[in-house]
Amino acid sequence: MAKSIFYHAGCPVCVSAEQDIIGLIGESNVEVVHLGEASDRIGEAEQAGVQSVPALLTPNGNVLHINFGASLADVKG
Amino acid sequence: MAKSIFYHAGCPVCVSAEQDIIGLIGESNVEVVHLGEASDRIGEAEQAGVQSVPALLTPNGNVLHINFGASLADVKG
Repeated sequence: MAKSIFYHAGCPVCVSAEQDIIGLIGESNVEVVHLGEASDRIGEAEQAGVQSVPALLTPNGNVLHINFGASLADVKG
Repeated sequence: MAKSIFYHAGCPVCVSAEQDIIGLIGESNVEVVHLGEASDRIGEAEQAGVQSVPALLTPNGNVLHINFGASLADVKG
């Protein structure tokens, strides 16, 4: 199975969701990207359709926005 | 692994998220509950912390609200 990508920004909501997602689909099936640290990947996330974090980009290209931590505008700021 | 429960209400956002979740964690690991049809389970969902659908209740009791389809108030109404 292709990997999913979990985008987050280190907020408490994000960390909690990350643990849940990893528990559900397995650590080896998810790449975790911290957009606060890897700000060079914000453009890639936006292009994929990520509007807020935490969000999970599935292998088939869908974006699941999970709970609500921060908008991408906040992450950029 | 204990099953997760995916609560939804049949909305397009819900159906799309359901397919993604089933693809990610496997159909046998998720119970799918349509709250529009099984309205007797709305109370159970509320008690678990579900505030909107679609939402995924994980085996450890956390609720992941995914995207946004409808609030529980709308489902009741």
